[in-house]
Order: sequence, then structure tokens, then C-alpha cells
Amino acid sequence: MFLPIEWLPEGKVRFLDQTRLPREEVWVETDGYPAIAEAIRRLRVRGAPLIGIAAAYGLALAGLAGPESGIDAWRGRLGRAAGELRATRPTAVNLEWALERALRAVAEADDVAEARRILVDEARRIHEEDIRANQRLGEHGAALIPTGARVLTHCNAGSLATGGYGTALGVLRSAWRQGRLQEVYATETRPLLQGARLTAWELAREGIPYTLIVDSAAGSLMRRGLIGAVIVGADRIAAGGDVANKIGTYPLAVLAGENGVPFYVAAPVSTIDLATASGDDIPIEERAGDEVTSLQGAATAPEGARAANPAFDVTPHAYVSAIISENGVARPPYEASLRAVCGAAEARAGALAHGETGDG
Amino acid sequence: MFLPIEWLPEGKVRFLDQTRLPREEVWVETDGYPAIAEAIRRLRVRGAPLIGIAAAYGLALAGLAGPESGIDAWRGRLGRAAGELRATRPTAVNLEWALERALRAVAEADDVAEARRILVDEARRIHEEDIRANQRLGEHGAALIPTGARVLTHCNAGSLATGGYGTALGVLRSAWRQGRLQEVYATETRPLLQGARLTAWELAREGIPYTLIVDSAAGSLMRRGLIGAVIVGADRIAAGGDVANKIGTYPLAVLAGENGVPFYVAAPVSTIDLATASGDDIPIEERAGDEVTSLQGAATAPEGARAANPAFDVTPHAYVSAIISENGVARPPYEASLRAVCGAAEARAGALAHGETGDG
Repeated sequence: MFLPIEWLPEGKVRFLDQTRLPREEVWVETDGYPAIAEAIRRLRVRGAPLIGIAAAYGLALAGLAGPESGIDAWRGRLGRAAGELRATRPTAVNLEWALERALRAVAEADDVAEARRILVDEARRIHEEDIRANQRLGEHGAALIPTGARVLTHCNAGSLATGGYGTALGVLRSAWRQGRLQEVYATETRPLLQGARLTAWELAREGIPYTLIVDSAAGSLMRRGLIGAVIVGADRIAAGGDVANKIGTYPLAVLAGENGVPFYVAAPVSTIDLATASGDDIPIEERAGDEVTSLQGAATAPEGARAANPAFDVTPHAYVSAIISENGVARPPYEASLRAVCGAAEARAGALAHGETGDG
Repeated sequence: MFLPIEWLPEGKVRFLDQTRLPREEVWVETDGYPAIAEAIRRLRVRGAPLIGIAAAYGLALAGLAGPESGIDAWRGRLGRAAGELRATRPTAVNLEWALERALRAVAEADDVAEARRILVDEARRIHEEDIRANQRLGEHGAALIPTGARVLTHCNAGSLATGGYGTALGVLRSAWRQGRLQEVYATETRPLLQGARLTAWELAREGIPYTLIVDSAAGSLMRRGLIGAVIVGADRIAAGGDVANKIGTYPLAVLAGENGVPFYVAAPVSTIDLATASGDDIPIEERAGDEVTSLQGAATAPEGARAANPAFDVTPHAYVSAIISENGVARPPYEASLRAVCGAAEARAGALAHGETGDG
């Protein structure tokens, strides 16, 4: 199991700087939450589930820092750290979800030493649960992959985007082990090339055959009948099933629909935001234009070129064939099915809180 | 008027090396047709109409080369040069069209001196007619642009793709002069970035406001209602109206249809191939994978990554709102309307052959 982030017993966090892949494997160790916030902002760690885990670890680092004075002063510092971590990126709901969960865990703590212990344990639990959730999600999803299929994926929803197994790539890993998967088509995913840099790196590591394409070639492959299914991750799923994910996801969904190819979204229930009814209400991060007008530091456009750079788009639920979670596969109508998989999650979380082990 | 290629009176061809844009304006002069063939193959000159013109000039250089011995030996050498030029790229029909036209012009010539004169004149005429055709096409097309619209274009169908005015960008130039155009959205057009490098360069030169986007962002702009029309060029149009154009065109057409945005194709009639019934019969060039796995010489993917790199895709006629030619706007059903605009071309060519000047 490859872990892109780890809690170290001496109270530090170690993470892989994903901006340096595939050329270099650079690991960063830190005991300061601002370094975690900066890593999230600069996409050194990225992927909705992973930034939730990283934020929880960042909050744990914030909890360990500073004097062991009164619990109220400690809570004040923790709240400010949570605010900073929350502000790093707006679209992925897992960030908020993980911070809320960690803060809730220490809401009743009486003294700082106890609160610190709880906070670190909760962050580690969020990480472990994400890995187990991905593995279950992988099993649920693999059953949907037609035997012998070539499957297209976009961006990176793999080990590098999660606690360690992957959502969309987790499904493809499971399908590969089951002998169902023939090959992965991976879009390069401009502007930051998470497909070319990260998905290709992961698939090569695992020996899963893959072919890279430019993002705009996916449509013609579908029209030529080469793609058996499309599977992507998600940064936030609204209650009605609209999906915010990496820019370029919406076109893939439309093209899949047009060509009779199933379009699947794989995401843990921490990505489902029942408080947001529609995709139109999801905040979409607009990143700096120079990500578009340059590539790996080299200019690709004339000096002074203006660029728009929305990092995500919203795929309306009508284009989504199914949403695969660790608690099962949600099908339309999504209002009911998403509530059901989330309900299963709550039931499960409750059970775990009472000492049961679950099926993971 | 900006000319990306020129016939020089001393019997040479001068062209802009487009692979060096936007960073450098490097002009190449040659008196050898192999340098022209190489320039087409390596995309130093590119764009369907321009490679037709370049091929005709290349053939003229081949005609000027070698001894002034017998006409039969000369024809033999010319035929071999035509074969080499024709083999450089398979998709754009303008290449074949221009070579056939030039060869037809010298079919009756009696001696080498006369044949050389005719060949050079015909190549220059192909170039001049392309510019005039683009200007007429621009006027026809501008009328279709909704006033105040933001218009999306893909790849480069501008001065740099033609004899000097542009097809899709020619329409946008005309619309801009008429005050109809608010702004151009230009896709960067991976893998070779003709949008970021060439379209941005042309628009900046002319002071037409533009915003660059990654190819995969076009869909969400359409969904957000930001795009009033999409207009692209073409490399070959089949008799039924299917359009081969730069990879990524088909997704834009599908997304335009899905969002109620008109999708226009602008191309001179030399791009219409009445001998090819359906888009499925158009040969699609597959280029080297390293265009995908690297960018401007720097690797973007892990070493050994495999990539597929179809240079073009086919947009079925059902997604095409209209095809704009120098002889008017063809609407569905295209069998009839394309034949009509081509018929107008033949009538026109006949008229010109008899010394009339036409309306250009």
C-alpha cells in the first residue's frame, strides 16, 4: 500500500511533494500546520480525500504547537488554524468535512493534553478510514467494469489523491486484480497534468497497462468505440447528484452520454455534501492564469496573454450513470440513493463509536 | 495583410517557421522542394489551406530545379516531387487539391521553359485566390456572429493557417471590424498548442481581445452561457458534411449542440472533398506519441509512457450548424448545399479562366 502522507510518531507529518512527480520523489517532513496549508494551496498534496486527511493532520500539528496553558487559549489557536486550513481551497468538501470532524472530536475535551491526544487519534482515524473506504469502494466499483474493457479516467483519483488506495483508480486497481480490465486510457489533464504526471506514474508502478491522450482526444476514442466506461473521482457531490470535479469532467460526461458509454463517479461519502442541493451552489476555484499560459515553468503563449483557469466544472446529475461509494452504488434518482449511502455511513460511524469493527 | 508564405521573384519560397512562434519570428528561405516537404511534415507550415499553397510552391520549386532537358524527363521529376509532397500529411485534402490543380495546369505544356512559367504562375494564383476566398468567406461568416458575442475557436484557422487572412479567424476579423465581436475564447489546443502559440499571437497583433483556456474548459464555459458561437476551420469536409479537423473539434461540436450554441465550420471550397462520402472514409493522421508525453522539449510524463496521438477527429454533420465558404453559407442537408457551393466555385473558376475578374 502506497501512502502519500503519514503521521510520524514524533509528532510530525511526512508527505510526498506531488508537484515534483514524475521526475523526482521528494518527501517533505514538517511539524508546522502552515507548511500543510501551503502544501494544499500549491497542490503539493491534492485530491479531495487527501486534502481532507492533510487538513486533519495539519490541525493535529496546530494542536501540538504552542504552550500547554489553558484549554480556552488552546481552542482559540486551534480555531484560527482550522480557519486557515479551510481557506486553502474552496471546492473539495472533504476539507471542511475533515476539519469539522476533528473539531467535533475535541469539543468535549477538558484539558490540553487530552485534547491533543484525541486530535491526533482522530486525524489518524480519518486517514485509516479513508483507506478502508477506498478498498470497499474499489470492490463495489469493479463489479461495474465490463469484462475486457478499456476504461478512461481523468486527472488523478488514485493513491496520490486519497489516503492510499484511490477512488476511481482504486476501482481500476480492483478490476485489474479481478482480470476484468484490459487497459486504462488516461487523459493528461491540463493545465497541471495530473494524468500525465501522477496517474501514469501510479499505473506504471502497478504494472497496469495504460495509454496517455490529450484531454481533447477522449471524444473521438469514445466515438470510435474504444472506451467501455469512464470513471472519475469527485471534489464535491451535491445532494441531487451534480458532481464537481477537475475541469474537463463535464465534457467527458456529455461525450460518454452521446456515445452510450457509462459514466461513473467514485468517491467516499465524505465527498457527498447533502447541505448543498445543486451543483450551481458549489464554489468553483479559479486559479492563476499562468497555469494555462505556461507549462513546467516554460511560457506556452505570447507574453501578456490573458487566460481563464477554472480548476473544476460541474457535471449535472443527468449525465452520471452511477456514484460509487464505500457504502454501495448510488443510482438515479440521487436525492434518495445518496441519502441512503450517507445514512449507511452515519449508521456505520455510530456503530464504530460504540466499539464495533464494521466490515472493513 | 500578413502572409505566412511568399514566392520571391528570384525563384525562392520564404515562409515563417511556425514551430518557433510566439517566442521568435524565424523566416526560412529555400529553393528546394524537399525543404518544403520537410516544413509541412514538421508543422513549420500548417493549416489545411496553407499546406495546399506550400505544396504548390514546392512543386514550382521542383519544376525550376534540374536541367532544361526534355519535357518528358522534366514531367517525370515533377511527378516524383508531387508524390513526395502529397505523402507529407494525409488528412487535409487541400494538399492533394493544390497539387492536382498545378499538375493539370502544365498537362498541355510543350516545353520546359513554358511549363515552368505556367507552374509558378499557377502556384501564385492558388495563393492569391485563397486570400480572396478567405476575405469573401469572412464577410459571409461575420453575418452569422451574434452582435456582442464571445466566440470560441479551436486550434489556429487564421492567417497562419491560410494564404494570409484566415478562415475561422478571418470570420472573426471581419466580425471584429463590423463591431459585432466582443471577445474570442481560444483553446490552447494540445498537444502542439496552436491556439496558445499562434491564435493568441495573431489576435494580439490585431488588437482583438481574447482569453486563452485549456481545451477541456470549453464545455463549462458553454454551460455557463459565456459562448455565443463556436467557429473552427477544417482539414477535409466530406460530401455529406462530416468535418475532419484538429483533434478536439468533435467534443466542442457535441458540447455546443448540448448547450444550444451554434457550431460553425469555415473553410474554402478547396477543403470540400465531394469524392469522399462520409467522414469515416477520411484518413486520420496518427502522430508520434512524444508530442503528448512532452511539451516544448520537456517531458510531461514518466519515461516510457505510451501515448496515442490522433491529430484530427471527425465531427458528424448532424452537429454542424453551417459550413461557411467563399461561395456562401451551406446549411443542412449538406449533400445538396455543399455541391451548390462547389458548383459555384467551378462556375467561377471557369469564368476566371475566360478572363473575367469575379467579385473578389
